[in-house]
Amino acid sequence: MTRKPADAARANPARAIAFHPGDTPDGGAVSLALAELRRPVVDLAPVDPVIDPAVAVFMGDCPMAFRPPVVAIAGGAPIVGAAAILAALAAAEPSKLLPRRPAERAVAEHWSAWIETDLVPPMMASIALRRLAPRHLPEAIEQARQVLKDRVARVEAALEDGPTLAGRWSVADMRLMAWLHRADWVGLGLGSRPALGAFADRAYAKPRIVLALAATKRPPVIVDHEGREGQGA
Amino acid sequence: MTRKPADAARANPARAIAFHPGDTPDGGAVSLALAELRRPVVDLAPVDPVIDPAVAVFMGDCPMAFRPPVVAIAGGAPIVGAAAILAALAAAEPSKLLPRRPAERAVAEHWSAWIETDLVPPMMASIALRRLAPRHLPEAIEQARQVLKDRVARVEAALEDGPTLAGRWSVADMRLMAWLHRADWVGLGLGSRPALGAFADRAYAKPRIVLALAATKRPPVIVDHEGREGQGA
Repeated sequence: MTRKPADAARANPARAIAFHPGDTPDGGAVSLALAELRRPVVDLAPVDPVIDPAVAVFMGDCPMAFRPPVVAIAGGAPIVGAAAILAALAAAEPSKLLPRRPAERAVAEHWSAWIETDLVPPMMASIALRRLAPRHLPEAIEQARQVLKDRVARVEAALEDGPTLAGRWSVADMRLMAWLHRADWVGLGLGSRPALGAFADRAYAKPRIVLALAATKRPPVIVDHEGREGQGA
Repeated sequence: MTRKPADAARANPARAIAFHPGDTPDGGAVSLALAELRRPVVDLAPVDPVIDPAVAVFMGDCPMAFRPPVVAIAGGAPIVGAAAILAALAAAEPSKLLPRRPAERAVAEHWSAWIETDLVPPMMASIALRRLAPRHLPEAIEQARQVLKDRVARVEAALEDGPTLAGRWSVADMRLMAWLHRADWVGLGLGSRPALGAFADRAYAKPRIVLALAATKRPPVIVDHEGREGQGA
């Protein structure tokens, strides 16, 4: 990350939100939420010793630890993981991140919880399987593909009823959109899912969404054979 | 990593090997090989812009990227991944890392290649599945368990014929031992595999092996609720 603390953050540190996107599309969901809040955002370095001790132990002791996104709101304690962060941000500024009507708000919260527990885990597992063991575990990969297909069909059906999951662009849509942005990682085709495809097209038509998703892509350090640095594609 | 450049490295930088263990047990295999070489080892910071461009693009663009070990020998180009590193080290100092007799050397090289292509990938995939999607992909996890069981049975049978895979402690045993050291991550029981268990016991009886494996465990930064730093368990 090469973003510099914004002038606004220096002028008003009490409102600044420190953010590290981590390694997965979940960081994109947090970035989408921050784009709605329009509060100053500063970098939270991944090495800052602010991670929850339990998370640090886990990340230090587990190979292939994906790093979850982390934020610290206005100098507060770090919040780890997209679900916890989006819930905290929505609690702080509900009018910007959740539908106003209680019934729609309940639907948004239902979808947020479902994406966390039922959609993201098999997507992560699917990526890992496809990347690490395509030759060794073809049946396991097929099993993961079927589970994902069923889950995605549920989202497709919901989006046939309206442009967003819960009446207006909410944290649930942000979590979903951040993963659709990386559908290629999961091997998820949007061509055969018109409602999801239209949902993604509407999101990509909004510059602030495109910018927020672009900001969470980790810029790899590239060194060519003469030792010059550049940016990855 | 908090290791400091050894005095020996400052005295003789031309022989120093820079090493970053990455995130997986593969780093342990490299550490075991370095312990045999008895050359000065210095830290290679993971952020050093020395990673192969192709690897950097991949690691920058893929979630749950496990970081492979990286070494640079005597100021040379970085070598990424346990298989490439162990091959390079063995080529540089074959008498310390491979059997002397050609027939045994061929067996060691066969096992090294097999561990790389047939044992490590399903172990990595198994870890990812067990960690990310136990509730969602039980059949995929069972499939991975069966594949691993068959592969490990092959190693068990080989170790019933002798104390090491190829006549003497070689790079193949180092790669295997580094993964056995983390058998708990894979969910691999050694109790029902007496030859593997005895292999691990013999390795753990050697202080230089215990030290080499311990050095590759990333020390997580732990901050208690008063903000004091400490080391993880």
